Amino acid sequence: MKRIALDMDQVMADLVAKFLSRFNEEYNKNYTKDDVVGKRLPELDEAAPHALYEYYGDPSFFRDLPVMPHSVEVVERLSEHYEIYIATAAMEVPPSFMAKFEWLQQFFPTIPQHHYVFCGDKSVIHADYLVDDTELQLNRFKNTGVMFAAPHNEHSAYPIRVNDWLELEKFFMTELEKYKEAETELK
Amino acid sequence: MKRIALDMDQVMADLVAKFLSRFNEEYNKNYTKDDVVGKRLPELDEAAPHALYEYYGDPSFFRDLPVMPHSVEVVERLSEHYEIYIATAAMEVPPSFMAKFEWLQQFFPTIPQHHYVFCGDKSVIHADYLVDDTELQLNRFKNTGVMFAAPHNEHSAYPIRVNDWLELEKFFMTELEKYKEAETELK
Repeated sequence: MKRIALDMDQVMADLVAKFLSRFNEEYNKNYTKDDVVGKRLPELDEAAPHALYEYYGDPSFFRDLPVMPHSVEVVERLSEHYEIYIATAAMEVPPSFMAKFEWLQQFFPTIPQHHYVFCGDKSVIHADYLVDDTELQLNRFKNTGVMFAAPHNEHSAYPIRVNDWLELEKFFMTELEKYKEAETELK
Repeated sequence: MKRIALDMDQVMADLVAKFLSRFNEEYNKNYTKDDVVGKRLPELDEAAPHALYEYYGDPSFFRDLPVMPHSVEVVERLSEHYEIYIATAAMEVPPSFMAKFEWLQQFFPTIPQHHYVFCGDKSVIHADYLVDDTELQLNRFKNTGVMFAAPHNEHSAYPIRVNDWLELEKFFMTELEKYKEAETELK
């Protein structure tokens, strides 16, 4: 089985949605995802860096991030054909460790916990694919990277890109067909 | 630069020493490392599984583990020639996340935090070498494994084995010479 490593934030979990809703409430704003297209969150507003620093220091912030649409069902279906690992740059936000662990246990109980990886630089991940929204991490990764669309990467020219989980499933099912064809040719 | 991934418990940190000292004190025993030769800690005594379960549930247990002799200086010297990563199976003991992170920051400040990896199954580690005391993890790892001697692995027949950090340093400096010779031959 080929192995897929999945990033969490903005792939499995909608961090931007939670950030915007909390920020809008606290600062009396009405920002939407359109306001962070092509930008990192700290670039949204002059108060954003401070808010982000505060939220990332809160051990509960990552505990209730919204689950990305269709991610649970697609992970379950892909698990039949691929080995699924988690690869999250949690080392950038140590207070998030326990929340991220518990979030995975709650929403993705089919992924065994010995398949979770909390890291920093994803060049250390040994997998066939990495699904990530961050171009820097995709470039560090040694095998095939798949960019998951997020507002900040909308202008990226990264070669493999999917817009949502249903597109991601199609991508991996097509890959599977290629492997099967290659195997058949070898026989 | 070649990359070395270092396990923490029983390679960098002496978990067995702390376990024995706390267990002996609480249960009025006098066990030494000789009593766990060829055994896993739960096999030491009928009370050991319960004690271990309790200690692993204590978020502070991993915070003050003794640093293995010469590990700090050898890591510093090896850093000049190798990229050093941490690969610890912290997913087996989630309450240890923050203690392990802080312990590394305190005792190994030269290793950047984006080189820390908290994982379960170490087949996911992309590195040239893995230094570990657990044969199962060494067998899962895709490249060169180096077994670090621990009481439980004393009877293992794993092919590459070092007894302490000074031996580990010698091993890696010899490896370096081999790479240099191979490079010279190519020129």
